[in-house]
Amino acid sequence: MTIADRWLLPDGVEDILPPKAEQIETLRSKLLDLYKSWGYDQVMPPMMEYLESLLTGVGHDLDTQTFKVTDQLNGRLMGVRADITPQVARIDAHSLAREGVSRFCYAGQVLHTKPAHTMDTRNPIQLGAEVYGHAGIASDFEVIALMLESLKLSKIEAITLDLGHVGVFRSLMQKAALDSDQERGLFDILRRKALPELEAYIPKYFKNQSLGEAVRQLAYLCGGPEILNTIRELVAPLSADAVEAVDALKQLVGRIQTQFSDVNIYIDLSELRGYNYHTGVVFSAFKTGGSQPLASGGRYDETGKVFGRARPATGFSLNLLKVADVTSLEVAKSKLILAPEQSEGDLNVLIDELRAKGHRVIRQLTDSDVELCDAVLTQVDGKWMVQDR
Amino acid sequence: MTIADRWLLPDGVEDILPPKAEQIETLRSKLLDLYKSWGYDQVMPPMMEYLESLLTGVGHDLDTQTFKVTDQLNGRLMGVRADITPQVARIDAHSLAREGVSRFCYAGQVLHTKPAHTMDTRNPIQLGAEVYGHAGIASDFEVIALMLESLKLSKIEAITLDLGHVGVFRSLMQKAALDSDQERGLFDILRRKALPELEAYIPKYFKNQSLGEAVRQLAYLCGGPEILNTIRELVAPLSADAVEAVDALKQLVGRIQTQFSDVNIYIDLSELRGYNYHTGVVFSAFKTGGSQPLASGGRYDETGKVFGRARPATGFSLNLLKVADVTSLEVAKSKLILAPEQSEGDLNVLIDELRAKGHRVIRQLTDSDVELCDAVLTQVDGKWMVQDR
Repeated sequence: MTIADRWLLPDGVEDILPPKAEQIETLRSKLLDLYKSWGYDQVMPPMMEYLESLLTGVGHDLDTQTFKVTDQLNGRLMGVRADITPQVARIDAHSLAREGVSRFCYAGQVLHTKPAHTMDTRNPIQLGAEVYGHAGIASDFEVIALMLESLKLSKIEAITLDLGHVGVFRSLMQKAALDSDQERGLFDILRRKALPELEAYIPKYFKNQSLGEAVRQLAYLCGGPEILNTIRELVAPLSADAVEAVDALKQLVGRIQTQFSDVNIYIDLSELRGYNYHTGVVFSAFKTGGSQPLASGGRYDETGKVFGRARPATGFSLNLLKVADVTSLEVAKSKLILAPEQSEGDLNVLIDELRAKGHRVIRQLTDSDVELCDAVLTQVDGKWMVQDR
Repeated sequence: MTIADRWLLPDGVEDILPPKAEQIETLRSKLLDLYKSWGYDQVMPPMMEYLESLLTGVGHDLDTQTFKVTDQLNGRLMGVRADITPQVARIDAHSLAREGVSRFCYAGQVLHTKPAHTMDTRNPIQLGAEVYGHAGIASDFEVIALMLESLKLSKIEAITLDLGHVGVFRSLMQKAALDSDQERGLFDILRRKALPELEAYIPKYFKNQSLGEAVRQLAYLCGGPEILNTIRELVAPLSADAVEAVDALKQLVGRIQTQFSDVNIYIDLSELRGYNYHTGVVFSAFKTGGSQPLASGGRYDETGKVFGRARPATGFSLNLLKVADVTSLEVAKSKLILAPEQSEGDLNVLIDELRAKGHRVIRQLTDSDVELCDAVLTQVDGKWMVQDR
């Protein structure tokens, strides 16, 4: 084995070095402080769990993304978490089953067997916040607002918010009475925005022509919030549930526009990420012009059910590494001050004070340490002071 | 499968819930700030790497503690890290190969296949700091001082520091010319403090009687720093290197006693944890009376070699979960204030201000939210104010 074989990191896995690491650490703690100030309690679920807890109710994608290992204590299969959201749902259902509304936040690493997109990391740092125990626009708005505040605090200037609602398609599907394979096929087409396939699919499986036509048109109806009026007209004759979902979106858009007038809103009802577990509003936030979301989330009202306690839930998560790639937040580098290797009395007190003030003080170990430093502690007329180099 | 099967967490794995999670988060950021103020640069190595990078030069224990997974991109074996120290050694040797002295710190989760001791966690949160590029007591003292400051900052009042130096035994072994199996057998006995086995072992394998007698006596010579004089007399006729190691320890003890007069020092040269990679001073810190170390470390001067750059190194690490178990640090709980679900203008400004000041403000989603809160935002004479409940 060559030395380079030992250096080499797997694809999609990297060292985060200074000063990047410090910037990420700063973002992490600023964001957690933000969530705390909004009344979200931090939880820390473990890095690994039994597979049935990790994968319950979240569908096939997460299964193939999860590394499996055997518990040597009992031979059961465990997974290294690929997502923290299902763990928090378990906590709300069982470990911390409070009555009333619960607000949780978290920050932690996850591992993916494969990068979600080419060049993506397989070791994201996931931060997120969730509200349990409330169904309705008020909590959807709260988590979207917190997500947008997260990006603003991360100094991401131009933000585009993609908004959808799985309820619109879902209610049309119920009317169309497709079987589950057909439904999955359709959602796969919509997710890939494979419009030519869609044109062939609809006449083949939709017996009700006006339903088929509505689904076809919906796939093309993306754009600014005004498009919701067109969509409402389109679905009004077909499904009262679909109309309700559109009206919920309109209400949500109104509140976002009032409080975040600088955020660009884009409506896309065929954006069906996580369709198998989302149950209402879904959303993603982009740096305007970016192709991959920085943060995303949605409503998933049934997730806790498998743990014995179904509660309405909505939340978002972000990959801190992606946010850090586009942040313009600068971490002020504090002064690096050189102190003698040994010292006592007054000088020790001074060093403690400088460190407590946020300066960095190193003890001189070799002559070359001087080169690294911005300033040196020197004695002038018997008094120690900091002298810039 | 029952619902309880899905709740159940594996042994040695747990959810950290509020308020414990907040306490741990506070400790984490206080400790990282401390390391930064001492001039240590934070690095964030990945959660997984190829096995040959993770396990290089660190011996068999870490191998059996490491979960192995296959890289689906190329079929190579990877490990989920069980220790962060070898990753930092790789970074110093390759990713960030600076000239001169480098100081690194880190914080992150690791996974163990089995608990190190009964009841131990298999998912520690490891924090640590390392100095590369300096050999000698000055850097040993620096990392020990930083470790002791970490425990003081974590409000652990009575601290006992176990000190050893693998150089004493190692130089006697060289004289005794045991083969590597015999040497390993002896160290295993010493590590387990299996004194009856030792009595049988020594006459069997030591041809040189006075060497054997010295090794036998060393196993019994544990205690306060004054014992170093007895040890020096014992090894002086046998090995100059052993004397040098003892003198280094004496010097180190002197410096620790001057700066940390309240720390209880215990000398134990047969404490040979990590003997296969440590090369000098080794140390552990306990809450006085505790049976398991809260933090430990030592010198390991050859670790970077397998990555193509051997540098002197010394450092320590701690498991934050263990520290948090015994800390008396209290996290002041800020006031939880209830705000109306919707608001505008002045009230929004007030809410932002309260949050920025460190208060927690939640938006009312249900009637029962009132019960959770310490105070409520109410309007008195047209002006919004915080009113305690």
